[in-house]
Amino acid sequence: MKIDHIGIAVNSIEEAKAFYEALGLVISHIEVVDEQGVKTAFLKVGESNIELLEPINESSPVYKFLQKRGKGIHHIAINVEGIENVLERLKGKGVRLINEKPVKGAHGKLVAFVHPASTGGVLLELCETKK
Amino acid sequence: MKIDHIGIAVNSIEEAKAFYEALGLVISHIEVVDEQGVKTAFLKVGESNIELLEPINESSPVYKFLQKRGKGIHHIAINVEGIENVLERLKGKGVRLINEKPVKGAHGKLVAFVHPASTGGVLLELCETKK
Repeated sequence: MKIDHIGIAVNSIEEAKAFYEALGLVISHIEVVDEQGVKTAFLKVGESNIELLEPINESSPVYKFLQKRGKGIHHIAINVEGIENVLERLKGKGVRLINEKPVKGAHGKLVAFVHPASTGGVLLELCETKK
Repeated sequence: MKIDHIGIAVNSIEEAKAFYEALGLVISHIEVVDEQGVKTAFLKVGESNIELLEPINESSPVYKFLQKRGKGIHHIAINVEGIENVLERLKGKGVRLINEKPVKGAHGKLVAFVHPASTGGVLLELCETKK
């Protein structure tokens, strides 16, 4: 397992990137994910990424998050192996899942979200990179 | 550079650890940091750690965070080399620093916090492990 990425909701990637670039991180690519209504900038940090998430419309969940809570960490993602089995095991232990079955995410990954009620208040994504 | 840890403020480590243990993570150790008024549980994930932070008194910054925002991510920490130089460079670029000089943290690390105003709303710790 590893921390796959930390997703940070921002009003403007252009504005937020200044600090991360000054720190020495580099934006590897920028991608628009229409289904989520976001533009995403990826900055590699070791085996993980920081993802800056900027909403591109008002129906984006990230737009709603910014309206409600302001900019800040939106979710964290942990890379696992055998995501279906992991979800079954969590369900058996009474963990509250947003997705009981994995759904398709960006880069052909399988992803499933765990409810903040079970994780200590964190919107937590489990993801698996299919080989 | 790498993500050193993700600090999550919780009311109870005992309660919050259930999910992380069901996921397959293991608490490597639990430590009380009196100066911060917290009990901390460390769970290794790849090259990073998840740190569950439980306040042990009402003057703890984590207690105040929980009162104001509820449980959730309190801060993230990035491991850097040459922290003094990094801080100088950030200051030169107009980044708002909480600590302009590094202070001593847990495990003999040098740490400095960057203000959320400069990071996209994230309380961000820079840390360096002294060899």
